[in-house]
Amino acid sequence: MKVNYLIVGAGLTGLTFANLLAQNENNKILIIEKRHHIGGNAYDSYNANHILIHNYGPHIFHTNNQTVWDYLSQFTEWCDYQHRVLSFVDGQFIPMPITLETINQLYNTNFSQFEMVDFIESQKESVVPIKSSEDVALNNAGRDIYEKFFMNYTTKQWGVVPSELDPAVISRIPFRFNRDTRYFTDRYQGIPKAGYTKMCEQMIDRPNIKVMLNTDYKEVRDAIDYDKMIYTGPIDYFYDHQFGKLKYRSVRFEMEDHDCESFQKSAVVNYPNDYDFTRITEYKKITGQQGRKTTIMKEFPCDGEEPFYPFPTKEWQELYLLYKAKADAEKNVIFAGRLAEYRYYNMDAVVDQAMRFFEMRFL
Amino acid sequence: MKVNYLIVGAGLTGLTFANLLAQNENNKILIIEKRHHIGGNAYDSYNANHILIHNYGPHIFHTNNQTVWDYLSQFTEWCDYQHRVLSFVDGQFIPMPITLETINQLYNTNFSQFEMVDFIESQKESVVPIKSSEDVALNNAGRDIYEKFFMNYTTKQWGVVPSELDPAVISRIPFRFNRDTRYFTDRYQGIPKAGYTKMCEQMIDRPNIKVMLNTDYKEVRDAIDYDKMIYTGPIDYFYDHQFGKLKYRSVRFEMEDHDCESFQKSAVVNYPNDYDFTRITEYKKITGQQGRKTTIMKEFPCDGEEPFYPFPTKEWQELYLLYKAKADAEKNVIFAGRLAEYRYYNMDAVVDQAMRFFEMRFL
Ligand SMILES: Cc1cc2nc3c(=O)[nH]c(=O)nc-3n(C[C@H](O)[C@H](O)[C@H](O)COP(=O)(O)OP(=O)(O)OC[C@H]3O[C@@H](n4cnc5c(N)ncnc54)[C@H](O)[C@@H]3O)c2cc1C
Ligand SMILES: Cc1cc2nc3c(=O)[nH]c(=O)nc-3n(C[C@H](O)[C@H](O)[C@H](O)COP(=O)(O)OP(=O)(O)OC[C@H]3O[C@@H](n4cnc5c(N)ncnc54)[C@H](O)[C@@H]3O)c2cc1C
Repeated sequence: MKVNYLIVGAGLTGLTFANLLAQNENNKILIIEKRHHIGGNAYDSYNANHILIHNYGPHIFHTNNQTVWDYLSQFTEWCDYQHRVLSFVDGQFIPMPITLETINQLYNTNFSQFEMVDFIESQKESVVPIKSSEDVALNNAGRDIYEKFFMNYTTKQWGVVPSELDPAVISRIPFRFNRDTRYFTDRYQGIPKAGYTKMCEQMIDRPNIKVMLNTDYKEVRDAIDYDKMIYTGPIDYFYDHQFGKLKYRSVRFEMEDHDCESFQKSAVVNYPNDYDFTRITEYKKITGQQGRKTTIMKEFPCDGEEPFYPFPTKEWQELYLLYKAKADAEKNVIFAGRLAEYRYYNMDAVVDQAMRFFEMRFL
Repeated sequence: MKVNYLIVGAGLTGLTFANLLAQNENNKILIIEKRHHIGGNAYDSYNANHILIHNYGPHIFHTNNQTVWDYLSQFTEWCDYQHRVLSFVDGQFIPMPITLETINQLYNTNFSQFEMVDFIESQKESVVPIKSSEDVALNNAGRDIYEKFFMNYTTKQWGVVPSELDPAVISRIPFRFNRDTRYFTDRYQGIPKAGYTKMCEQMIDRPNIKVMLNTDYKEVRDAIDYDKMIYTGPIDYFYDHQFGKLKYRSVRFEMEDHDCESFQKSAVVNYPNDYDFTRITEYKKITGQQGRKTTIMKEFPCDGEEPFYPFPTKEWQELYLLYKAKADAEKNVIFAGRLAEYRYYNMDAVVDQAMRFFEMRFL
């Protein structure tokens, strides 16, 4: 089969490339996707209770990048949405990230902004030299805040105690010395009105884009004659793990249906110190869906098959660089996206990155 | 690309073949689908109000065939559902098909079963010889019932007045001399709990089934090396319309969102004598979904691009037979399904047919 562009992966990276390349009607584009659906980790679908869930964990779109916002707005309308997260600490539900509200609720104080600055200063523990993520946190926030909000959460998230984790993982603890309890403060924030999957369908609604599902590209690549490949899968897999496997952290998702309108006070509640899951998401609170039932999702980080989070430590970054050197030398393959660049990108960042690559390489 | 089976069309016919063939792990199967989704006309999806709709008109699963029911039950759970239809006639909403309730409501009588038999007999108008659908209806049901329920509905549905329509179109008018107002009386009746599309996804959730979307098979067939093709698209298209185009009736669907819990009394209301649409479907009443809003669909039959209903008249059946003679002579192509067999099949019938073909040809 002859195509101009073979795109591996139907996540937001691959779909953005496909959409941009398809604007030239002469380009024939084939997307190959391993899963049975498009959308990558942003995929959403309805469960048997007719509740829209994000199958790979809660996805909130937020960006300061107007170009990306305008670009995606061609394919979807948005529900205005401001994300808020509570953290279950000392038996209370306390706003995250750490704001004036968090401190005042945690310590039952009534600090002003200025008093909070002083308070945080007084908490900090100087550790030199900084060798681990724990050291970063102690220097930044002191022991109490570190232990209550970060220590156990990070341990669950990465499977390693912060005292043994590279400083890159907790590179700083963000404080907000005001009462803005929103999780993100980006200029644009929202949820696609009919869901991410529908937005993704719109992106490739062109006759010169073909999509092949349930297919690992290695199963078919020899049968396809292409000018250029855009590869958005794991970079180590591309090279048959020849330098060894890169480490990705995975997540096991457990869904629960509940017979009540509302399960918890905010869309996401973190459980740093209790249970084996890191957080619970209640999807109706993200999508604004109404109804008498609700569905929640618990996230259990694990070392599983599905690569979700590239490991942000020096050791793995170095292994990645071995692969990257090979990738940079490829003439007909572009490596892009979260898995191929081994980097934790948000959705807006992968779209931005794909748009830039496209401009650089194809215009 | 080398596969054993190339399946054209991801409707229930193609998916049943794919599923059955895939049980042999050595079979490599590729499905090619023109649309951006699987499921064929049974496809359902959620709209921006989070309401599950059937994109190609209301689909009620009903069958007396236990084998088909058990087979599909591997892929879905079912919501029990008994379909009911009202017809808006003389300003009233009256049950369809014609039962004792229909007659008593229409004429404000209080007939017993036995009186209804006599009444219908007294209404019949003998027309010989029978040349048209109108003649069938007059012989069967008399002028009043024919004019009120069938004449205008049939005209809208087929774009031809029944007096000019082959007797095959209205081949008989079914009466029920009891108070059973269900639309179907089949032993098994239901709606897939998470929708038809999810059921379809389950049918092809096997590593040896690949799916290519957005692709007309003619665009890629030369690049694919297959042992056998299963073709479920329109038969005339397969032969490049060489004997002329077959006539299919199409439908234009209009969706409306309404800000109320409930729009109408039953899932489907027919409008034989008013408006240009034939019927209104309220999807929540089929799926049992709850919520403060509702979505309805109006159906406007038309001569459009999408082939929905093969034309059940002699002229077109004869043209079909020319194609069928060619098809029967093909060694490596199986023609199956509603479009390839040019026959109005229900969902259970296409699954049954595919299972039979599979047994005959592949076991
Ligand atoms: C739990 C979680 C929560 C997140 N929350 C947010 C959030 O709130 N906001 C935000 O902006 N971002 C969030 N993200 C990040 C977001 O998911 C990513 O930015 C985005 O999905 C990356 O798109 P991508 O196309 O680069 O990669 P992916 O979405 O991973 O897509 C890559 C695709 O390639 C396919 N593929 C891989 N290998 C092969 C192969 N060999 N052959 C064929 N296909 C292959 C995969 O199946 C996948 O579909 C979150 C991520 C996770 C894991
Ligand atoms: C308005 C309406 C209401 C219905 N209601 C009911 C109901 O209540 N109950 C019931 O049992 N049945 C109902 N049906 C019938 C039901 O839809 C069919 O029985 C069933 O969908 C037939 O499946 P199929 O696979 O044979 O055909 P389809 O579902 O039509 O699938 C054929 C597929 O082939 C694809 N295709 C065609 N040409 C090509 C090509 N050149 N290249 C690639 N792909 C191609 C098409 O896009 C389509 O997806 C209804 C049908 C309609 C139109």
